[in-house]
Amino acid sequence: MISNDMYMLGSKRSVIREIFEYGKIRASQIGADKVFDFSLGNPNVPAPECVKQAIMEILSNENPVAIHGYTSAQGDFTTRKAIADSLNKRFNTELTADNLYMTVGAAAALCICLKALATQGNEFITFAPFFPEYKVFVENTGAKLIVVPSNSDDFQIDFDLFEKAINTNTKAVIINSPNNPSGVVYSEQTIKKLCSLLEEKSKKFGHVIYLISDEPYRELVYDDIEVPFTFNYYSNTLICYSYSKSLSLPGERIGYVAVSSKMEDKDSVYAAVCGAGRALGYVCAPSLFQKVIAKCLDSKPDLEIYKKNRDLLYNEMTKLGFTCIHPDGAFYLFVKSPEEDANLFCEKAKKYELLLVPGDDFGCPGFVRIAYCVSTVQIENSLPAFALLAKDYNL
Amino acid sequence: MISNDMYMLGSKRSVIREIFEYGKIRASQIGADKVFDFSLGNPNVPAPECVKQAIMEILSNENPVAIHGYTSAQGDFTTRKAIADSLNKRFNTELTADNLYMTVGAAAALCICLKALATQGNEFITFAPFFPEYKVFVENTGAKLIVVPSNSDDFQIDFDLFEKAINTNTKAVIINSPNNPSGVVYSEQTIKKLCSLLEEKSKKFGHVIYLISDEPYRELVYDDIEVPFTFNYYSNTLICYSYSKSLSLPGERIGYVAVSSKMEDKDSVYAAVCGAGRALGYVCAPSLFQKVIAKCLDSKPDLEIYKKNRDLLYNEMTKLGFTCIHPDGAFYLFVKSPEEDANLFCEKAKKYELLLVPGDDFGCPGFVRIAYCVSTVQIENSLPAFALLAKDYNL
Repeated sequence: MISNDMYMLGSKRSVIREIFEYGKIRASQIGADKVFDFSLGNPNVPAPECVKQAIMEILSNENPVAIHGYTSAQGDFTTRKAIADSLNKRFNTELTADNLYMTVGAAAALCICLKALATQGNEFITFAPFFPEYKVFVENTGAKLIVVPSNSDDFQIDFDLFEKAINTNTKAVIINSPNNPSGVVYSEQTIKKLCSLLEEKSKKFGHVIYLISDEPYRELVYDDIEVPFTFNYYSNTLICYSYSKSLSLPGERIGYVAVSSKMEDKDSVYAAVCGAGRALGYVCAPSLFQKVIAKCLDSKPDLEIYKKNRDLLYNEMTKLGFTCIHPDGAFYLFVKSPEEDANLFCEKAKKYELLLVPGDDFGCPGFVRIAYCVSTVQIENSLPAFALLAKDYNL
Repeated sequence: MISNDMYMLGSKRSVIREIFEYGKIRASQIGADKVFDFSLGNPNVPAPECVKQAIMEILSNENPVAIHGYTSAQGDFTTRKAIADSLNKRFNTELTADNLYMTVGAAAALCICLKALATQGNEFITFAPFFPEYKVFVENTGAKLIVVPSNSDDFQIDFDLFEKAINTNTKAVIINSPNNPSGVVYSEQTIKKLCSLLEEKSKKFGHVIYLISDEPYRELVYDDIEVPFTFNYYSNTLICYSYSKSLSLPGERIGYVAVSSKMEDKDSVYAAVCGAGRALGYVCAPSLFQKVIAKCLDSKPDLEIYKKNRDLLYNEMTKLGFTCIHPDGAFYLFVKSPEEDANLFCEKAKKYELLLVPGDDFGCPGFVRIAYCVSTVQIENSLPAFALLAKDYNL
């Protein structure tokens, strides 16, 4: 009588959420400091001071009707211009405010891009491991998500498998680098090869295959790793961005879609993005935070904590004998399960109060995700438990 | 190649937006004080002081990671509980936090309800005049919007026409009282008759026909008019609410879906609402403003300005000979066009720099909407222009 699909989506809690809820119960039983919850990708670093200052300034100096009023559907012009200018300066692009459409976070940005592009019988390709909601978002447009496994050693794209998956129904390829859950950043070589293949296949099938680059972790990279800026490698690219991680504002739901200034039919695609935002009920992105973004574009939270956590966890886990993918970005460590079924491994880890997420939902069975957006103390205190777990497997 | 529906939606500006843009150009030519723009339903009354104070308090006293962090998908528990308590107190209901789902404004709330309920071949009924985006939102679920004209004298429901429109495919009826664009509030008699008909037809067709009550203007009523609280008249009701008007926060995109505690299958419907929010990419409502709402539930902006504007405009327009629907709520005056085609009337009004919106897009040709959410001075200054317009029509 009501939508069964929506009922199923709403009544089945995600595996991550199940583990998180278990953690809360367990914490109430034995104390929060005894439970090592690595389940959620929720930034633990506060927003930079700039955010608070910007809010105070705006509230003190600007007209309240304008502060909280509707912006245009595509977003406040000043904010879009500021973002375009900042991107141009960093990446040598030629974007204007009219290449940007402000959204209620990256999930909204993705849903809007998919809805704007999808036509009857379309397929969208992504690479495992991938953010599980991609499937929900793609299927909501009536299209199909095709998942292509990655190279098992470095988690870059497996081009043989990818080439086999592309066909005339392929509307777009979704990439997520730095990646949730693997922490892997695509190399320039990977991006170049991907884009050249997309050019070739677009020609072969006589229609554009778009690249959707989902980049909420763009600024979260360590050492001197560079994330290739996709607009500079492929004209038919849409970027989905969020300030959830780069300004630690996940709950405020603020991000954007950027349409490449070099895209063949950029005006039509931008119009379709506007139409999709309208059809999905988005109206405009939250107005106060649009203004905050314009003032805080060059700020970052203290990302050193993530780097410290990454180094500590990667080094110690590797020493203990676990096989870990080296994360160059994001705040996740992807670890090979010592037994085939990562779910069983996660169950065993629970005995030591270690809450890890099996990779199955990310399309990568046999691996687990450890979210290290937690206090360094939690990681330090968890190491003896990981040592016992390693011993259990005779590592 | 891309979605033509989305392209069309995004490239065709709404009539309201066209008029508003014309007004901006005209203002730059002859001065803003010479243009009487009544096109937009954008609150001109600032948010109550409580909003600013609440933001300052939250920023000063609470942990920034929590302030800006994800809330649960259904929303912050404290906020949902506060809203439930407030509604219970005002309307003698028995709601809990679990009847509420926080949304990114009323448009999101509507899209989520429609998506949660719609199944193959469904129809949703609404009454003209109606908010034009209803059609976009309903069609996005694959369902059909059926528009039933209202009584032409008082704009209450025409029950003969309504009864003819209900059939076995009817999934829900959408009402909007106080109404945009007519300002009409449904009487208790109308609501009772509507609900009794819905009971009867639900029985006849062997399935629930839901009532979706879209109530962004609930608090904007004048004199001693009461808006019947739909939960108290019909069990199978979902309320879509927004703080856009009641706290003058339209750009912040904050509202809720409330599922009646008396609904037959309330847990399933609530789960489907959660699922639809997930499928549409909503993640959670903006976190800071969820917290603000909990602190400002009993505040209101200065609604006296709207009442003053309403009285002035209604009285003067009626004196000039225009036929006006008496608005008991919202901030719109709905006026009968003195010539059949309201578009021609609006064109003539433009000659006197009066920017009005034809009723055609609201499903009500032959009427125009005057949004009086403007300064009282603008209304005062516009009266000579309205007088000349009346003279033009020999009123």
